[in-house]
Parts: sequence; structure tokens; C-alpha cells
Amino acid sequence: MVRFSANSVVFLGLGLISGSLALALRAAGWQGSLSAWGPRELSLQRGQELGIIDGYTLDLDEAIQSAEVIVVGAPPMASGELLATLLPKLDALDQRPVVTDMASIKGWVIDRAGLNYSRFVPGHPIAGSEHSGVDSAQVRLFQGREVILTPNEDTDPQAIEWVSAMWQAAGSRITLMSVADHDAALAASSHSPHMLAYALTKALAEDPLDSMRHGGGALRDMTRIAGSDALMWRDVALTNRVALVEALTRVEAEIATLKRDIDAEDGSALEAYFTTCREFRRSHDAILNPLTDLSSVTDDSVS
Amino acid sequence: MVRFSANSVVFLGLGLISGSLALALRAAGWQGSLSAWGPRELSLQRGQELGIIDGYTLDLDEAIQSAEVIVVGAPPMASGELLATLLPKLDALDQRPVVTDMASIKGWVIDRAGLNYSRFVPGHPIAGSEHSGVDSAQVRLFQGREVILTPNEDTDPQAIEWVSAMWQAAGSRITLMSVADHDAALAASSHSPHMLAYALTKALAEDPLDSMRHGGGALRDMTRIAGSDALMWRDVALTNRVALVEALTRVEAEIATLKRDIDAEDGSALEAYFTTCREFRRSHDAILNPLTDLSSVTDDSVS
Repeated sequence: MVRFSANSVVFLGLGLISGSLALALRAAGWQGSLSAWGPRELSLQRGQELGIIDGYTLDLDEAIQSAEVIVVGAPPMASGELLATLLPKLDALDQRPVVTDMASIKGWVIDRAGLNYSRFVPGHPIAGSEHSGVDSAQVRLFQGREVILTPNEDTDPQAIEWVSAMWQAAGSRITLMSVADHDAALAASSHSPHMLAYALTKALAEDPLDSMRHGGGALRDMTRIAGSDALMWRDVALTNRVALVEALTRVEAEIATLKRDIDAEDGSALEAYFTTCREFRRSHDAILNPLTDLSSVTDDSVS
Repeated sequence: MVRFSANSVVFLGLGLISGSLALALRAAGWQGSLSAWGPRELSLQRGQELGIIDGYTLDLDEAIQSAEVIVVGAPPMASGELLATLLPKLDALDQRPVVTDMASIKGWVIDRAGLNYSRFVPGHPIAGSEHSGVDSAQVRLFQGREVILTPNEDTDPQAIEWVSAMWQAAGSRITLMSVADHDAALAASSHSPHMLAYALTKALAEDPLDSMRHGGGALRDMTRIAGSDALMWRDVALTNRVALVEALTRVEAEIATLKRDIDAEDGSALEAYFTTCREFRRSHDAILNPLTDLSSVTDDSVS
């Protein structure tokens, strides 16, 4: 294990992702202090009851006082707002803590954060669940998963090192990317797939035959993420608007191609298309299934 | 367990689905004989080696001679072709066996079969995998899953009873539907979701950022079925063309609505849309996840 040498992590917002990170750090044997601040005392209380955090406060200034690493765990828009309040406070401290966030959009959040605080390392763990809240925290959520960091040329190398070490301790691998590449890649690999799951689910919700009753494993998987948190995905759609619309447009063009080939009864075109997809998907199997036994993340009947 | 009183089942074609049915019948304690005919001796040999069938023949006339129940296990088009050859042969026998098929399209297959053989009960188990071949057979593939039967007014009630009892022994529940409703419902619940997975995968295959490398659980699930058998899905697309194009058109309209709301930055419309989807999907959780421990069917890194 890479040594994560900070002595304290403070979560601003405690939910599925931050709770899972706390569990993973403890499971990796990290001995530092884990505490949290958040707008809802119930989640914080629950986190303490579950043994996920050692303590909490409702006072933001108190929370950041002794923090070495601050992890912002909030939906994209709230992350940006919180960082905008937080970074000037931190900039005034003698010992400036390292800060990272976990929002699935980077450009909007960094812009909203405003201050170019050199110890802020924007981050995004590519792991999640259609469940939310600290009760759904899973110790292995990040095992084998990628965490993308998008530092800029002013970012303090020690801050990058600490944030990287924290995620590696939790079982993840680190990729450094530009903000623009992150937002475009995630529009294609995560945000547009979520919109497709929503669109499919909505079409089925309006189907007079209630065809979802006749769904099997394919429909289970193709609609699982339509159970995701609505506020979170509203934020994603609004804050990554341009890249998301582009990614959706590319998928629309593919659907149009398929419809045209089906309409034309062009069996060989369809077979070639499906074969290309099969090969491409299978060449990414290892990335998409980093562990064979993460079934609890997959099966949405398990919360 | 419902008593399945036939003494012999013959599979015409041995692969994932028929192999899984054979395993499930044995696991349920059914003592009859299980044999197979097929165009490829290798699959049949492999089925016998694995203990899935008791024996096999390469001679169709021999295969059907002593069969009480014949299960056609082939892709949709081959199922129709095979039934067209088979039913006239069976009609000439003294003891006319019960026949069922498992194709995911019913209208085309029944039309192609031609003869209105009263002991033919068209069927479709709503279970599958992106894997194929008898080596991928899973004893619990049908546990809690729906099997749709589409008999007509001439179908022999005893034949319906036998086919129902066979599937119930394998752990499934039976739904009777009209052919037209089946094909429309499955276009919406299975065939169009497969096309969406293909379209998404193809868009990612052409993405210069190779964004699939940055995929997590959402992308894993949204593209899993793009690893499905290309010939099988070519057949489905061609044989359920009209209903499939209609179902895809409905999903396209939803994608267009989402794009419009995203473009207009209409957060409250998006939030309401996602909330509707979340509630609708969750109200179908029990149907889509009949067992919590079918992880081997879900996790595509397990073959």
C-alpha cells in the first residue's frame, strides 16, 4: 500500500461516496482521524453510529480548523458553492490543508470555486451506485476503480501526492487528466449513459402494455441507474451541458443508423455492427469489471 | 413443485438456454430422459461430457421418434425454419409430441413454422446472458424469471399444461399473452434496450478519447449486452422489425426531450423527469431482480 501520510481527513458532506471512502481507509489500516461536517445532522449522527466517522461538527469553521485533508462530498453544484466559501477561509490559515472534491463534473465546479488555491486537487472517483446516503456506504466501492484528478500547473505537488495516496489506499488507481478531457470523456462514458437509462425508463413508464413487467436481466441493467438520485443528475446535466448534448447527439446518430439498417432489413450491416460492438465491449471487460466479486454493487436489490 | 409428467425431453439445438433448462430440470429432481439433436456435434458432445444431456443424435428423425416434449433451441430465424421442417413430420406420427420453442420473437417464428400444429406451444423465457454456448449454461438462469407462452385457440390444453409445468419445474412463472402483445412488449423491454446498448457502445468505439476506459459500474451495465451474440440479435432486429422501430422511436423522442431540457437548462423539468424514472424503476425492482444472489448472471466477468 502507498503510504497516506496525513493525520486527519474531514468530509464536508457525508453520504455514499464519502462514507465508502472512510470505510476503505479504515479497512486499509489507516489510523488518522475521520470526521465530518454537513448540513444535515442526521447523516452525520448516522455515520458516527455506524462507526464510519469518529466525530462530527455542524460548525464549518471548527471542522476545517485541524484538518490536514478536506474532502468535499456533495452534488456538483453544491460542491462548487461550498468550495467558493471554503477556499478563501483556508487561504487565510497558517497551515493550509489539502482539499479535494469528488464531483463528476470538473470544469463547472472549478470555475465556481473561483480561487486558484494551490492545495486544491479536483478529483472524481469513477464509482458510485444508484443508492445514496451514508447507510449505503460500501467498503469496496473503489476497489480497482479509477480516480481521475485534474490539477493545473499551479497545484502543489505534495497535495497531488496526498490525494493520490488517499485514493490508492482505498484501492483505486489514479489518472491525471485535463479538465476539458475529463468532462468530455465522462459525458460519453457516464453522463450520456445515465440519460439513455432515463429515456428508456421514461418510454417504458408511458408504455400502455407496461412492458417493464416483462423485463429480464437486460432491462434490469439498462435501467438500474435510472434509480439514481434526481438532484445529483439534474446538476450533472446542467453543469456538463455542452459535452453531454454532444455525447447524446453521437448516440442519437448511432440509433438512427441502426433504425435505418433495421428498416432496410440489412442483415449483413446489422451483423457487422453488432460484431464490432461485441469485440469493442469485450476488449474493455477488464476495465469495466475490475473485480469479479463486486456483485453487491451490481445487484440493485441489495442496498 | 408442479409435476412435470412427461418422460422425455429432446432439445433441437443445445446452447446456453437449452442447456440451462436441462440443468434446472435435473436440479428440480425431474427423472425423465434428456437428449439432444443439433447441427454441430461438438456442442452435443460437450453437453454430454458436462452431464447436461444423457445422449444425442445427429439424425433428426431419430431424435423425434421417442420424444414426448421437443424444445427448439435456436436463434429466431433458425427456429422458424426448423419448425417448418419439423411440424409436418410430427403431424404424421401416431403419438404426436408436444413442441415448444424459446425464440424471443413469436410472430415471425409462428408464421414461418406454417402448420397450425395443435401441440405446438410457442414460448419465450425472459432470461439470457451475453454469453452463449452450452458451456455457459447456468442451473438458476430461469429462477424467478417469466416465461411467456403464446398459444392460440386451437392449442391442445394438455400441451400448454406440459410446457407450463416444465418451465415451472425450472423455477419460472408463466404468463400467457397474444403473439402481437408479446412482440410489442418485448420490443420495448428487451429488443430496443439491446439496440441502445449497441448504439452507445458504437459511439464509444468511435470516440477519439476512448472514453470507455473511464467507465464505471454504470457503463459496465449499460454496455454489457452489447457483448451478445451478433447473429441472434441480427435475427431479432429483422424478425421484429416493425415493433422494434416503433419502440426505438419512442426512446428517441425521450432522448430529444431530455436534450431539449438540458439545452434550455431547465433544472426543474429535468429533476421531475429523473424523479418519475426513479420511482417507476423502483416500483419494478422486484420483477427485475427476482433473486438477490444471481450475481453470476449479472457480472459479466464470470462466464
